[in-house]
Amino acid sequence: MSGTLFGLGIGPGDPDLITLKALKILQKATVIAYPAPDKGDSLARSIVESHLPGNQEEIIIRTPMVAGNTPAHDVYDEYAVVIEDHLEEGRDVAVLCEGDPFFYGSFMYIFERLAHRYDSEIIPGVSSLMACAAQANFPLASRKDILTVLPGPLGEDELERRLADTDAAAIMKVGRHLDKIVRVLKKLDLTEKAIYVEHATMTNTKTLTIAELEKAKAPYFSMILVQKRGEAWV
Amino acid sequence: MSGTLFGLGIGPGDPDLITLKALKILQKATVIAYPAPDKGDSLARSIVESHLPGNQEEIIIRTPMVAGNTPAHDVYDEYAVVIEDHLEEGRDVAVLCEGDPFFYGSFMYIFERLAHRYDSEIIPGVSSLMACAAQANFPLASRKDILTVLPGPLGEDELERRLADTDAAAIMKVGRHLDKIVRVLKKLDLTEKAIYVEHATMTNTKTLTIAELEKAKAPYFSMILVQKRGEAWV
Repeated sequence: MSGTLFGLGIGPGDPDLITLKALKILQKATVIAYPAPDKGDSLARSIVESHLPGNQEEIIIRTPMVAGNTPAHDVYDEYAVVIEDHLEEGRDVAVLCEGDPFFYGSFMYIFERLAHRYDSEIIPGVSSLMACAAQANFPLASRKDILTVLPGPLGEDELERRLADTDAAAIMKVGRHLDKIVRVLKKLDLTEKAIYVEHATMTNTKTLTIAELEKAKAPYFSMILVQKRGEAWV
Repeated sequence: MSGTLFGLGIGPGDPDLITLKALKILQKATVIAYPAPDKGDSLARSIVESHLPGNQEEIIIRTPMVAGNTPAHDVYDEYAVVIEDHLEEGRDVAVLCEGDPFFYGSFMYIFERLAHRYDSEIIPGVSSLMACAAQANFPLASRKDILTVLPGPLGEDELERRLADTDAAAIMKVGRHLDKIVRVLKKLDLTEKAIYVEHATMTNTKTLTIAELEKAKAPYFSMILVQKRGEAWV
């Protein structure tokens, strides 16, 4: 009998924000796999490190970032084969996913290669979206709000159009797109209704107003939240 | 010294989808508070029931649903005073929130009344959005996708306009708006790229294609997910 492929949401960074369900699967799986940069440590592994039993086989999915943040498809082809070998031998493989597996994560590339041929189970996790809102004490959406999740690399005009036409928004992966996003927020007079959060729930987290943010340098793991009724809450 | 107000994300329904952090606070808080309908049991309390130490004071926030799902503001005024009394006496109060506290939850009404005057901490949870995607094996958003979260009661024309203009969408609280939503999905030729989920991660969960869904009756806790590139994954 083949093993099961788990997409394991491990939460946004605080090791205590893993669910009981993910923790049980994490500690029981024969093999764990996790993404890591070309060189250096895996953030996903560091999040769960204190929970690991220490006797598991580990697959480090080294994913070099190529131009434009495009994932290297041949890398996923290669690792899918490694994971598949374990599944074929009847070993369960838990792929660690920062945040939630199906919310802007790289697990999807493994999932689309293997899930139609093996038993798979997705364990949802606390996403960066919820983590940032909690970290900033920023109620995100309620009642009949329309919430739009926008990727930072979006063109300036489109970003403006979509921010103008929503009740609440989260702009993900701010990084080098910070200046553009701040310009759009100013143009739409939304700077007072937005908040910036980086590394939510991690020890190095930072929350800033848009005014405080100018001239700052945003890391990749940063987000700007907008809530047009925000002034009532903060 | 005053107590702390916790907004405690307890996850979407499976008791094991609570985080370690929320569990610790849940079991340590002197007082817990949770929403319940006018008559009948609290879903939030039932989710955490197996985790409760059994020696806590419990505040049942009875919230009658009035016309148009408007929350009864005087109800929240009243319960805020009850919670405030505990905080004033130095007792921590954990308000249980299904899913995540700041993602379409009623905790916001307590938060806006008390958070500016007492220490408060929000513990993010696994939201219904992530739970539905996981339950349905439905990758929701990746890379540069724009994801739009739409409330079911939205007017038909606006629903159509917004669904036409996004990469992925989640339509929340489908309930009695099912027929309208299905009409719009058909008009936009999106029925094959959408999935229906009710009671995600609970024992009575159900996942249906839009074709299977016709003539079904959707409960309040149901969602339709749309991913325009969906056919590549399912």
